[in-house]
Amino acid sequence: MTATSLLTSPFDVRQAARTGALCGPTANLAPGFIQANLAILPQDLAYDFLLFCQRNPKPCPLVGVSETGDPMIPALGRNLDIRTDLPRYRVWQKGELVAEPQSVEDWWRDDLVSFLIGCSFSFEEALLAAGIGIRHIEEGCNVPMFRTSIETVPAGRFSGPVVVSMRPMSPKDAVRAVEITSRLPAAHGSPIHIGDPAQIGIADLSRPDYGDAVSVRAGEVPVFWACGVTPQAAIARVKPEFCITHAPGHMLVTDIPNASLM
Amino acid sequence: MTATSLLTSPFDVRQAARTGALCGPTANLAPGFIQANLAILPQDLAYDFLLFCQRNPKPCPLVGVSETGDPMIPALGRNLDIRTDLPRYRVWQKGELVAEPQSVEDWWRDDLVSFLIGCSFSFEEALLAAGIGIRHIEEGCNVPMFRTSIETVPAGRFSGPVVVSMRPMSPKDAVRAVEITSRLPAAHGSPIHIGDPAQIGIADLSRPDYGDAVSVRAGEVPVFWACGVTPQAAIARVKPEFCITHAPGHMLVTDIPNASLM
Repeated sequence: MTATSLLTSPFDVRQAARTGALCGPTANLAPGFIQANLAILPQDLAYDFLLFCQRNPKPCPLVGVSETGDPMIPALGRNLDIRTDLPRYRVWQKGELVAEPQSVEDWWRDDLVSFLIGCSFSFEEALLAAGIGIRHIEEGCNVPMFRTSIETVPAGRFSGPVVVSMRPMSPKDAVRAVEITSRLPAAHGSPIHIGDPAQIGIADLSRPDYGDAVSVRAGEVPVFWACGVTPQAAIARVKPEFCITHAPGHMLVTDIPNASLM
Repeated sequence: MTATSLLTSPFDVRQAARTGALCGPTANLAPGFIQANLAILPQDLAYDFLLFCQRNPKPCPLVGVSETGDPMIPALGRNLDIRTDLPRYRVWQKGELVAEPQSVEDWWRDDLVSFLIGCSFSFEEALLAAGIGIRHIEEGCNVPMFRTSIETVPAGRFSGPVVVSMRPMSPKDAVRAVEITSRLPAAHGSPIHIGDPAQIGIADLSRPDYGDAVSVRAGEVPVFWACGVTPQAAIARVKPEFCITHAPGHMLVTDIPNASLM
């Protein structure tokens, strides 16, 4: 048992990140609570990005938006300071990665708005609870993700393809997975495609654009969910003069129970 | 049979509004298609209002947001011109009602953003289809609406109480109504309260703040849904230098089938 496996409360996870004791990924920490992708943007991009999320709720399910310039987000967690409470950040200038710090206190500005976007951890927990196996967890790797030929609905300066994550399963489990995830709109909701990858512009399931390939067994169908990489890629295309995101896998752990999504 | 009862397609309803042939309410027109509340605001209020809707999805379920200055909203309907395609509008200056025209072409400005917010017609249709009677329809009056002691989550300049609509029904139907409306988040979603009105600050069911009182029979429970009057009241508190809304009951009829919400 590692020290981080003792972090069962969201508050404890955030405190460990704040003090520097936790600098690794948040998967499996504080089970049962919503974890979220982070995008911090200057106010002059905030309206376009908020509208982009509104128009693309499956890839960009907003679970919270901060007040402009305010690092505290009480709606998402007790004493939550978005500058320190994730284990690791990425700081970007004009599309270039310039730092991967454990705190962004030194980078903070009064015009920043924090967007928190639901992630697949919540729905994977619900699938596992229903007895549906998740291949990339079984195989100990990252979920395979693919750019698709489906375009997001643009909003102002934001646009680009929908990125999906893929989980192979039996057709029977696929039906059950649709039922379960359709009740979780704040965690990407129901799948956007089941079956033939070519129909959404994916040429080869064994060559994901992000993450790792997983095995697809005989009789299984690939099931595709909209993925939080979609807004990240849309931001990357804009190359904002400044922005901050979470480091991959290093999410914000909120005080909101997954069950409250249903 | 009146002439308007022949308006079964959303396109025909909008054309009739555009030509002036239709100047009355849109209830029961183009059954099966989403109707929406309208709020048109200057761009300088648009971010705050969009955030207000994001934070208060039950009273303010956004079904669409226009491009700034663009009266055409193709995502919501073929050839849809928001300046002409509702039967009647209300034009406001600093919180004062200054006109109730059938077209707002003469009032249009390049900085206006149109917000379309789902309305209860869609969920009432689903309840009726399930055999659940709706009292204000049976009694031929407007739905009773009440200000509550529940506060919206504020966003920038927008704040105020949640306004609810009330429909009395048997406890059995109330359970079924929760099931049905929980599948319709774009039409206010599931109820926010069932039973004792005092718990949400309503003193007297026979004295609604808006609309008409309806009878509540022995053994029935009042069921309360968040209502689109909530954002209207929040806008009224701000007293914007300029804004446009639909006239009560005179909604935008979209090309989006109600069933696509489920």
